[in-house]
Amino acid sequence: MDTAGFAIAIMAAGKGTRLKSRRPKVLHEIGGRALLEHVIAAAKQVVPADRIYCIVGHESERVKAAVAATGVKFVLQAEQRGTGHALQMVKAYFAMGGDTVPEHLLVLSGDVPLIRPETIEAICEAHLAEGAAMTILTAVPDDPTGYGRVLRSQSNGPEVTAIVEQKALTAEQMGAREINSGIYCFRTESLFSKLDSLSTNNAHGEYYLTDVAAMLVADGERVVAVQAESVDEVLGANTIAEMMHLDAAMRLATARRLMANGVTIFRPETCVIDAAVEVGADTVIEPYVQLLGATRIGVASRVRSYSVVQDSVIGDGVLVRNGCVLDHAEVGDGAMLGPYAHLRPESRIGEQAHVGNFCETKKMTLGKGSKANHLTYLGDAVIGAGVNVGAGVITCNYDGVHKHVTTIGDGAFVGSDSTLVAPVAVGAGAYVAAGSCITKDVPDGALGLGRSRQVVKEGWASSRRALIEAKKNC
Amino acid sequence: MDTAGFAIAIMAAGKGTRLKSRRPKVLHEIGGRALLEHVIAAAKQVVPADRIYCIVGHESERVKAAVAATGVKFVLQAEQRGTGHALQMVKAYFAMGGDTVPEHLLVLSGDVPLIRPETIEAICEAHLAEGAAMTILTAVPDDPTGYGRVLRSQSNGPEVTAIVEQKALTAEQMGAREINSGIYCFRTESLFSKLDSLSTNNAHGEYYLTDVAAMLVADGERVVAVQAESVDEVLGANTIAEMMHLDAAMRLATARRLMANGVTIFRPETCVIDAAVEVGADTVIEPYVQLLGATRIGVASRVRSYSVVQDSVIGDGVLVRNGCVLDHAEVGDGAMLGPYAHLRPESRIGEQAHVGNFCETKKMTLGKGSKANHLTYLGDAVIGAGVNVGAGVITCNYDGVHKHVTTIGDGAFVGSDSTLVAPVAVGAGAYVAAGSCITKDVPDGALGLGRSRQVVKEGWASSRRALIEAKKNC
Amino acid sequence: MDTAGFAIAIMAAGKGTRLKSRRPKVLHEIGGRALLEHVIAAAKQVVPADRIYCIVGHESERVKAAVAATGVKFVLQAEQRGTGHALQMVKAYFAMGGDTVPEHLLVLSGDVPLIRPETIEAICEAHLAEGAAMTILTAVPDDPTGYGRVLRSQSNGPEVTAIVEQKALTAEQMGAREINSGIYCFRTESLFSKLDSLSTNNAHGEYYLTDVAAMLVADGERVVAVQAESVDEVLGANTIAEMMHLDAAMRLATARRLMANGVTIFRPETCVIDAAVEVGADTVIEPYVQLLGATRIGVASRVRSYSVVQDSVIGDGVLVRNGCVLDHAEVGDGAMLGPYAHLRPESRIGEQAHVGNFCETKKMTLGKGSKANHLTYLGDAVIGAGVNVGAGVITCNYDGVHKHVTTIGDGAFVGSDSTLVAPVAVGAGAYVAAGSCITKDVPDGALGLGRSRQVVKEGWASSRRALIEAKKNC
Repeated sequence: MDTAGFAIAIMAAGKGTRLKSRRPKVLHEIGGRALLEHVIAAAKQVVPADRIYCIVGHESERVKAAVAATGVKFVLQAEQRGTGHALQMVKAYFAMGGDTVPEHLLVLSGDVPLIRPETIEAICEAHLAEGAAMTILTAVPDDPTGYGRVLRSQSNGPEVTAIVEQKALTAEQMGAREINSGIYCFRTESLFSKLDSLSTNNAHGEYYLTDVAAMLVADGERVVAVQAESVDEVLGANTIAEMMHLDAAMRLATARRLMANGVTIFRPETCVIDAAVEVGADTVIEPYVQLLGATRIGVASRVRSYSVVQDSVIGDGVLVRNGCVLDHAEVGDGAMLGPYAHLRPESRIGEQAHVGNFCETKKMTLGKGSKANHLTYLGDAVIGAGVNVGAGVITCNYDGVHKHVTTIGDGAFVGSDSTLVAPVAVGAGAYVAAGSCITKDVPDGALGLGRSRQVVKEGWASSRRALIEAKKNC
Repeated sequence: MDTAGFAIAIMAAGKGTRLKSRRPKVLHEIGGRALLEHVIAAAKQVVPADRIYCIVGHESERVKAAVAATGVKFVLQAEQRGTGHALQMVKAYFAMGGDTVPEHLLVLSGDVPLIRPETIEAICEAHLAEGAAMTILTAVPDDPTGYGRVLRSQSNGPEVTAIVEQKALTAEQMGAREINSGIYCFRTESLFSKLDSLSTNNAHGEYYLTDVAAMLVADGERVVAVQAESVDEVLGANTIAEMMHLDAAMRLATARRLMANGVTIFRPETCVIDAAVEVGADTVIEPYVQLLGATRIGVASRVRSYSVVQDSVIGDGVLVRNGCVLDHAEVGDGAMLGPYAHLRPESRIGEQAHVGNFCETKKMTLGKGSKANHLTYLGDAVIGAGVNVGAGVITCNYDGVHKHVTTIGDGAFVGSDSTLVAPVAVGAGAYVAAGSCITKDVPDGALGLGRSRQVVKEGWASSRRALIEAKKNC
Repeated sequence: MDTAGFAIAIMAAGKGTRLKSRRPKVLHEIGGRALLEHVIAAAKQVVPADRIYCIVGHESERVKAAVAATGVKFVLQAEQRGTGHALQMVKAYFAMGGDTVPEHLLVLSGDVPLIRPETIEAICEAHLAEGAAMTILTAVPDDPTGYGRVLRSQSNGPEVTAIVEQKALTAEQMGAREINSGIYCFRTESLFSKLDSLSTNNAHGEYYLTDVAAMLVADGERVVAVQAESVDEVLGANTIAEMMHLDAAMRLATARRLMANGVTIFRPETCVIDAAVEVGADTVIEPYVQLLGATRIGVASRVRSYSVVQDSVIGDGVLVRNGCVLDHAEVGDGAMLGPYAHLRPESRIGEQAHVGNFCETKKMTLGKGSKANHLTYLGDAVIGAGVNVGAGVITCNYDGVHKHVTTIGDGAFVGSDSTLVAPVAVGAGAYVAAGSCITKDVPDGALGLGRSRQVVKEGWASSRRALIEAKKNC
């Protein structure tokens, strides 16, 4: 639809006292990102970022910093005196003249994170179609107790006569089950004309946006209701327990989507999979796996239990064994990792390459078919194809001041427990003897050797043991 | 019972389009093995493998390879034109004359994995007792919608009058709740006499086996129904989500069986335990443990969280700490592992021996009471009793061409960070100094030493630091 | 309330045959400690330990040893002949004269672990207020089948007329839903006067404590009932499956308490958190984390998945990455651990210090801002501030006989793959070259170097490869 006449305001100024947290409520996370980020992401599907106004207040600098990258604008509500007061600040913002006043203003809550773009569009559409001054998103939960109810003039008609708080419900109205979500769309002119008339003459001494509905109805303006498809979409997260519930629901939905596309996910409810993750058909995800951020996995791969993959790209036919941790890494087709391989950012593992148990990589390339299978640290390294990196090999990339690069050519063999003191190069087809400390380049096809000749002292250990025993018996 | 006159056909030719997977449906796994393997395993409890006929079609070579070891026979259904067509292929197979035609033919589905041998036998028994031409396994689910219904002549009687598809149900028949499982037993002669009369005159243009029931009833032959004890047994897995559900159910049943025998399993629903696993009384299994394959664990042991034990044998009083990975390993009584010990195939850990954190073992023996507690790689090694293997010790078993063996005698002490370049032997009671590279044998009771003498350069680091600071200030 | 006149007897003599375990029933664990420990802990909130009498019998020495530290007293019931017999033993114990007979005796079950101190006090209070000879704790479960029912003289009144076993219920009494919990309070004199009159004239041939109720009622003494707030509190654990259920319930309650105090716990039902654990606001606990024993964590920290923290103290703003194992460790503010760091007892990690992947620490101090990021073993060490410990560094603290200390001064740099053979000291600002074996002290500001000069043999590897190829082709 055409939403050119619309802007969106997002309520994000509250503290969330019930959370008992120093973190502002809208910055609490579910599904891997802040509540407010979810709402902004949905809003941006409907209008451009520069027509989204986040109303910030409590810890406003922290909130602004957290979502600055989204490109939205901010309206400061320094004191938090109610939802009506929040929109008074928006009116004042527009009065300063920088931005054009939009024809219609849609109001979202920064702590209602499951709202879908489709629903936001549906509100806009109904708002225009009905020629309404105010359109209210409603829902019908199993138990409406505690929520404000939206009363319609006719049960089938869109027209609203009143929003009534729980406490104010008459005996007759008690049966009303349609609740107010706190999400609205206004004709901006109608809204702004009423804001200054709001009063704080209520229990909390706040300016309530809901009072605008009564004023508009009294003036004979059209107020209508649109019902959300699912109650979940309008659920707020007032306690951490509620947030954790929304988090689990959101992630399970992702697992179900992947399964429907041919991915096998054992115990899908035990996996933590972010919404943006992509996985190819016939890949198997074992229980207790975490796929986070912008991770992409190809077809016919397998990720074993307790592995955590963050913002990484994994090819086809890859085996990630138990307990691997990948962060901003790339893994080629047919590679095998772990168990307990730790791939840090800028690790690029080639096709058919192996990185084995208790190995750490960072800012490095491992060529096709190369193997580093045991207890290695490979950082700031460029390793060719067909290389064998022995157990316990360490690239000494840091001299206390700078980081240096280690280069290993194709087909080289680096013996176990070797130390490669960077900057240093091991040539193609070269051989480093086990236990060597390599400080100078080893040319192609050469042997590098840096270890002491072994000495044996016959009987030494036996004598020592006899001595120790003798002492004990004294 | 005597099942000498019976053979079993298993439908395993379908693609499983709804799975969106390249893997044939019957090769999808639950409970640690393919759907088809579960069905074959149940069938083999009732008749010998050489009287089980798997009807394969889609990716037939892959399916045959996957279950070849079971010893069953295969019938090719090159095109998949319905269940009736599948049995036409079986008839053709017998017509070629290699195998004797069985008196009775029982038909199972390769994607209905929870069928029990007891139920298969019950069908055979009823089939004989009733002198039936066709016996249908039925079930009564909570919601029969979508399934074909089996109608009986009398509510208590075994005799069936018709199988009616959901769409063809009359208003009167809508209440019928007994469903057709798709599992049947036929008098072979009666079945084969009707197969050629089947038509494809239906919505999918396929030959339906269910039509045989109507033909037999029309001919006055006896068609009867046997009801399964539980609905689960006849559940197919049409989507990955359904398979995952069956998987969880199957594994939880195993956990419950073990608990009933005195095993403590914390959070049993979080553990992944294969059906064949055996665990002794008073052993404690912590949450998130995986016991796979033919694993056996003794009494009074403890397996801590996140450990995965595959096809291994663990004794009594063993402690497996967090995050250990065991694969085809053996662990003696009173041994202690981990956290994060990785025992690869052919690791044999002696009684009271210890393998500690970030240690890897492979094809090796560790004697009674020996300890390798920190960051070691021990591969292709024979290590005696009472040996102390220091931190970071590595057996260099690979020279780029061959693997070689390291031998360590009883009571030897191998200092930390030593490198043992195989083939090499450290004698009984011998001592290897820390940091040594050992390339030659160390005799019994001797000291092996292979490291450089230390040099100290006074003031070197201070001067270097001063220089670096000076450069920075330039 | 004043409980000066009360003592508590705890039934802990039974075997728990249904568990099929060699471990006595009351020593089975939930929520991290034995069933009996839970009951004793609750009892100690109401009366001092020296007025708590544990009645032990089956494996009495093992049970006594397990709870000896609580300071309770023990009464031996050598044969287990019923609950009445157990209290006959208590009576005999007092008859020996060592302890003063209490005015009132409260009887708890050692296998009913969720009983709360508040409920025990409520029983005592009601017992006194009603001037009762016997007060019975009752509950009203959804399904009372199988339990003994408590019948009251009036539905609202406290007075009890009878306890009726399931089998003895008349048709009229079948509807009675209030069950006997097996937890009672007696006026000691009234109880003791009846114990000798109990008979074993019943199905199990045991002395039943419930028969005392009938005797007291017959004598016109006052028997009253107090109803527990929740049924859970009076649930016994007769099977391991039931225990596991109580375990999960207990731990989830802990997670909920922490969330209500501002802690974010993703998937709270997947975490294992002991009751005594304390966590500050704004700390995030990821799924599958275990916080055990007396662990305390500060504010704004994060514990990532699969980490297990036992009896440790973690400061503010600490990051514990995936799979860390901490045991009796201390971690300062702003420190970063893991993934897969293993901190063993007496590890003290300073503020802003780092312990990275596959590192093990034991009995050591790491100063402020110091880093040991890769594959190290640091045991028996005192490490200053601003120290850089390179990858693969190992403190050789054990010489086969004694443990020795390694000391590293402030600002020192220990190169990768170095071996520090204790006792040894690296001075402040000193530098240890990579790959060195350090056996003598390195003074402040000096360089310590202990490695071989590297040799290169040109063409060696190429020739060897050619030779191997030649052999292959022979």
